[in-house]
Amino acid sequence: MNAAILAIGSEMLGPTRVDTNSLKITTALERYGIALARKSVVGDLLGDLVDEIRYAIARVDFLIITGGLGPTEDDLTREALAAAFGLTLRVEQSIIDKIEARFAARGWKMPDVNKRQANVFVDQQWLPNERGTAPGFHLQVDGGKHVWVFPGVPHELEWMLATYFVPWLEELSGGRSRYRRILKIAGLTESGVEEKLKPYYEHHPGELVTILATSAAIEVHLIGEGDEAAAKAQLATRERELLDIFGQRVFGYDDDTIESVLGALLASRNETLATAESCTGGLLGSRITDISGSSRYYLGGAVCYTAAAKSALANVDAALIREHGEVSEEVAVALAQGIRARFGATYGVGITGIAGPTGGTPEKPVGTVHIAVATADAHHHRKLFSQGPRTIVKWYSTQQALDLLRRVILGAI
Amino acid sequence: MNAAILAIGSEMLGPTRVDTNSLKITTALERYGIALARKSVVGDLLGDLVDEIRYAIARVDFLIITGGLGPTEDDLTREALAAAFGLTLRVEQSIIDKIEARFAARGWKMPDVNKRQANVFVDQQWLPNERGTAPGFHLQVDGGKHVWVFPGVPHELEWMLATYFVPWLEELSGGRSRYRRILKIAGLTESGVEEKLKPYYEHHPGELVTILATSAAIEVHLIGEGDEAAAKAQLATRERELLDIFGQRVFGYDDDTIESVLGALLASRNETLATAESCTGGLLGSRITDISGSSRYYLGGAVCYTAAAKSALANVDAALIREHGEVSEEVAVALAQGIRARFGATYGVGITGIAGPTGGTPEKPVGTVHIAVATADAHHHRKLFSQGPRTIVKWYSTQQALDLLRRVILGAI
Repeated sequence: MNAAILAIGSEMLGPTRVDTNSLKITTALERYGIALARKSVVGDLLGDLVDEIRYAIARVDFLIITGGLGPTEDDLTREALAAAFGLTLRVEQSIIDKIEARFAARGWKMPDVNKRQANVFVDQQWLPNERGTAPGFHLQVDGGKHVWVFPGVPHELEWMLATYFVPWLEELSGGRSRYRRILKIAGLTESGVEEKLKPYYEHHPGELVTILATSAAIEVHLIGEGDEAAAKAQLATRERELLDIFGQRVFGYDDDTIESVLGALLASRNETLATAESCTGGLLGSRITDISGSSRYYLGGAVCYTAAAKSALANVDAALIREHGEVSEEVAVALAQGIRARFGATYGVGITGIAGPTGGTPEKPVGTVHIAVATADAHHHRKLFSQGPRTIVKWYSTQQALDLLRRVILGAI
Repeated sequence: MNAAILAIGSEMLGPTRVDTNSLKITTALERYGIALARKSVVGDLLGDLVDEIRYAIARVDFLIITGGLGPTEDDLTREALAAAFGLTLRVEQSIIDKIEARFAARGWKMPDVNKRQANVFVDQQWLPNERGTAPGFHLQVDGGKHVWVFPGVPHELEWMLATYFVPWLEELSGGRSRYRRILKIAGLTESGVEEKLKPYYEHHPGELVTILATSAAIEVHLIGEGDEAAAKAQLATRERELLDIFGQRVFGYDDDTIESVLGALLASRNETLATAESCTGGLLGSRITDISGSSRYYLGGAVCYTAAAKSALANVDAALIREHGEVSEEVAVALAQGIRARFGATYGVGITGIAGPTGGTPEKPVGTVHIAVATADAHHHRKLFSQGPRTIVKWYSTQQALDLLRRVILGAI
């Protein structure tokens, strides 16, 4: 069984947009062992769309279409489908009612153009969208082929995939046949991971294992095939071998992030956290609070962009700053200790550094960052050096700080 | 004149790879006024490739193909092109010599498989690759259509585009003929922008104007065509018309972000800023400090995830919190005023709300956020309501807070 993906919208053909939607669809397909034969992007021209839909569906068992369901005149997916498969459009009043209610909730009136989103197909299924205004569709065409149509807005697409598409795949395929296990590693580079994996590769020639470097982790992907019990048993064996190699550097699995792993750890221990950040400007607090329920363990923090703020908000001794400079081990530790005491938290984290591109010196070049974690009776410090633009330095610094905190909590320091 | 892009390789159809090569090609095409009609990705199956190449070239004036030029057996781009256009392959000895020399320079022997990369087409042009082993091709087929073929390795592709493709585009098009101007709008939805643009559309039928909703702004893209002076004059005229329509809602242009616009504004006025955030958890500070040089105007802030922190770090009266609740206009204003006073800043910004998915009540549902800006003698407040996951609520709240601050500074409130 195979599938194709078609993304619709001229904006996807410009120099400014990367397609990430197709990755979400591909992840779902992979789980059920369905091969993706092709993917394509076509602009908002009716004739091109009709041709592309006909070309794609002729080559696969089913087609997934995203985008072109908006309210504006260049959103032509509905019209193209009608032309490609000889379908008739009708107005579904319940959709108009729902869109009007969404606008009313914000105190706005629904613009007339939004009514186009209430067009659905006669004798075909439409899919309510609880995350936005455009419904999706599940069409059966050409004697048994399926066409799934979803909005291109990423969080709407995700909800629709989980609600409609994945359960259908599950039934269609008779259950999963391909399992991916992802181990997430902190504290090593991609080539460091590759190097440590060499003996593993030699022991298991021909097996599917991939290393992937993302901004959030180095990931090792294992693929297990067959029925669930066999595939999972195989993955569990391989995972143990990888844990022997990487130990505490494996911070999580699959959808885990270092923020979510830390959150679960802190919540389970009824412990709390406060932060004092300089060069990361609030990114550490923001990442921690991306996790739902973080108010259970995150008390808050200070963004201390000046020496005066470090003293006023995190009780750092001004003399200490004068002696060692704002970017120093001593000040990072004092930030962690000061903010911990101020909030009465179990742990305090401090970050101070030079995010660049200006502000470096020969002794403290751009990219120099000190991170520290303080507990009631100890503190831990790391000096980092990272290259890249400002936002990368910020991200890497918070990543390392979160990982240092994780290892302090686990006693794996 | 129009073009299509085809990326070849099964690895591009998995759940982990994003296509960024096509953006580099698209950037070059746009400058010379060449429309991209479609792009597609196809795996390593000879029949699929031949079909796709024939389908694509039939629709456009020229086709750009990347990938599938490696030495291994699943690299089938050369064979597919030969089949699609009835071309004959021959071995080019100078390529073998060059590849052998590259390997020898590293002390290695060339594996036999690499010889496949010396296959070129009889009576067609091949393109030396100074960055890797695979040559590219410039084919003329089907009575005047052009097919450009480049390796998929990003830095090799970039070099080949600059060396062969851009000069050809320049000659083909008679020089650069397309200029893009982007206006960035805050405080309106995509359909709100569309609605306001209706009279503009009616005045200028057939002109190229696109609305693009990104997480950071609603963008209106204008395209000017012709020689540089004419195109830029046309863009300036259209831009003035759009400014008449959107006024102060246009916060910036082209690569501007609301953070960068605010930063330039504050720096030019020698004014300073402090922030007190609850539900955004530090994201506001982090966005402000994404701008190089933000230490000139950003003094710092407090992340007040608890009522106690709001009082301790931003001097919010505990009685005020008890009376109105943590999520209220009064507390947002008190956060802005308190943090402003604490830091001695020109402006204070306060944010408090419910990012969800839990914590809502009937009176204060998830997504309710209050933002405030305080100056020495005034304050401004907005109540927001946004739907979506936690990270979207956080982003939207900081976006609106930054825009409120911008308008307060400009006196356009």
